Amino acid sequence: MEELNELKDYTMDSYVVGIDVGGQTSKIGVVDARGDVLAQKVIRTDTYGTDADAYIKALAAAVKETIKDSGKEGLIRGIGVGAPNGNFYTGEVAFAPNIAWAANQAVPFAKLLSEEMGGIPVSLTNDANAAAVGEMTYGAARGMKNFIMITLGTGVGSGIVINGQVVYGHDGFAGELGHVCVVRHNGRQCGCGRSGCLEAYCSATGVARTAREWLEMSNEPSLLRDVDKISSKDVYDAAKEGDAVALKIFEYTGTLLGTAFSDFIAFSAPEAIVLFGGLARSKEFLTEHIEKAMNDNVLKIWKNKVKLVYSSLKESDAAILGASALAWEL
Amino acid sequence: MEELNELKDYTMDSYVVGIDVGGQTSKIGVVDARGDVLAQKVIRTDTYGTDADAYIKALAAAVKETIKDSGKEGLIRGIGVGAPNGNFYTGEVAFAPNIAWAANQAVPFAKLLSEEMGGIPVSLTNDANAAAVGEMTYGAARGMKNFIMITLGTGVGSGIVINGQVVYGHDGFAGELGHVCVVRHNGRQCGCGRSGCLEAYCSATGVARTAREWLEMSNEPSLLRDVDKISSKDVYDAAKEGDAVALKIFEYTGTLLGTAFSDFIAFSAPEAIVLFGGLARSKEFLTEHIEKAMNDNVLKIWKNKVKLVYSSLKESDAAILGASALAWEL
Repeated sequence: MEELNELKDYTMDSYVVGIDVGGQTSKIGVVDARGDVLAQKVIRTDTYGTDADAYIKALAAAVKETIKDSGKEGLIRGIGVGAPNGNFYTGEVAFAPNIAWAANQAVPFAKLLSEEMGGIPVSLTNDANAAAVGEMTYGAARGMKNFIMITLGTGVGSGIVINGQVVYGHDGFAGELGHVCVVRHNGRQCGCGRSGCLEAYCSATGVARTAREWLEMSNEPSLLRDVDKISSKDVYDAAKEGDAVALKIFEYTGTLLGTAFSDFIAFSAPEAIVLFGGLARSKEFLTEHIEKAMNDNVLKIWKNKVKLVYSSLKESDAAILGASALAWEL
Repeated sequence: MEELNELKDYTMDSYVVGIDVGGQTSKIGVVDARGDVLAQKVIRTDTYGTDADAYIKALAAAVKETIKDSGKEGLIRGIGVGAPNGNFYTGEVAFAPNIAWAANQAVPFAKLLSEEMGGIPVSLTNDANAAAVGEMTYGAARGMKNFIMITLGTGVGSGIVINGQVVYGHDGFAGELGHVCVVRHNGRQCGCGRSGCLEAYCSATGVARTAREWLEMSNEPSLLRDVDKISSKDVYDAAKEGDAVALKIFEYTGTLLGTAFSDFIAFSAPEAIVLFGGLARSKEFLTEHIEKAMNDNVLKIWKNKVKLVYSSLKESDAAILGASALAWEL
């Protein structure tokens, strides 16, 4: 409570903008110090081809409209952006495979947007780091100084907080925990070009891959055999019905996650690991297996000590809030 | 140079004591701001049975003598201690398997020593963290804000520095990178009770184990077959003679190290990995294999970017310097 009051104090009558840049859409919101989203808007990310300038111009126009809608013109303290491959130090979005206008170049996103916005400062980081800041400012990690945020979406991302600060590393790219190796031999091909990465198994797409592999390897009956193009949501639905194959897929996924987490704990000894993202919604089938593998594999000093918690932010607002939280530090 | 001047400035005419607590001996040194050891002394660690108080009293007496020898009585700013299982937050040495008086209890080391020393402040951490601080203050990591120190001795330890600060984590035990899992299936038993840990393969004892295993598995001729009780030093000596088995052992060890390092890089994106300890003296046989495995296994953004460097501290002083560096922060 005290912290919140402090936060309100120095931000009285000032507001921030949070922007979550995804491969398909970009979500914009005007946020107050309590984490309430006063106005929001969505534009496409993927209709500008390779023309980064055109996208930034359209984004700036939409941000201006959103600020107008919120009635807080002239009171915006800063803009925070979470974007794939966003670099906190350089303010660039560089070589992001899922965004055409940034796939083959480094776009000075923060600089361009700030110019279009008449000089309002812009802070940028990758989406998982933004989520970590959001969780620390408004969510499940409030009051924590040491935690690791793991985002389980199309990919697996991470934001690491140590001593109350996001870890950016020497070059701004720290926290790529989706790309630690969890299967050393004959591991699955990962989108990054290597094999055996955590992301290749424990993302939403990884879970769907596991389902397809397992159905092919056995004749065990499963509701999933009736599904045309299996998604992680289908696996969740089947598990809900008690489908044995679906339940085993979550056991496998949770066990790999927990095993990986035990190595993360040896690194930074966090108070908690915070899970976020689409696949985290399957927590009823994952938690037990993650916790078991994590506690089976850590050093004694950490057994049953590190909390596993789930994001407490309203899902639709979480990405905007995470990005906006960056702007308070500007 | 500027930094050094600053350091000298606020430490003019003040000195620190560094203490390196090992399983067999404890080394004490009085150190000035330039990292020169003005006087030193060694006492036994292992002749006090389970009586921690007796050890601390003997240590304090020896520290007082060392200060007297240095001629800097009354000018000691603080005492820094590096000890196995030393906890920076609590100042305790707790459940350290190789020290009888701390094997089954948590000894409030910093508090007890400070009392014996008439209130001179004492800061304590584990030996690898102390080494990292020493390297940052006086050694190969000067000027670096993000690096990972790996100590290759009887065990494998680590000290992680992010934004210029040692990472202690939520509980003070962060940086146990000797106990990440590098061999997931049928891994070697580790002293920690788990299996497949980096330490079980890439410590000095791990290298000796590798040698014994390999000699048993094949009939390949090797100089090592004439050695009675193989140590890592024997493997080094054989490699020097061009022994094929010994060279393969270093290739295997270096490859495992480099592979593990690639996951560490994904965590904190360090500027460098700094190697220290007895086994690091075999660098002529390790470096090439560590670098190859590290660069083969990192994400593209880090390929050939992260430096591999070796401690530049004079070996005999390094442990004392590392511990003493802690005291400047008191």
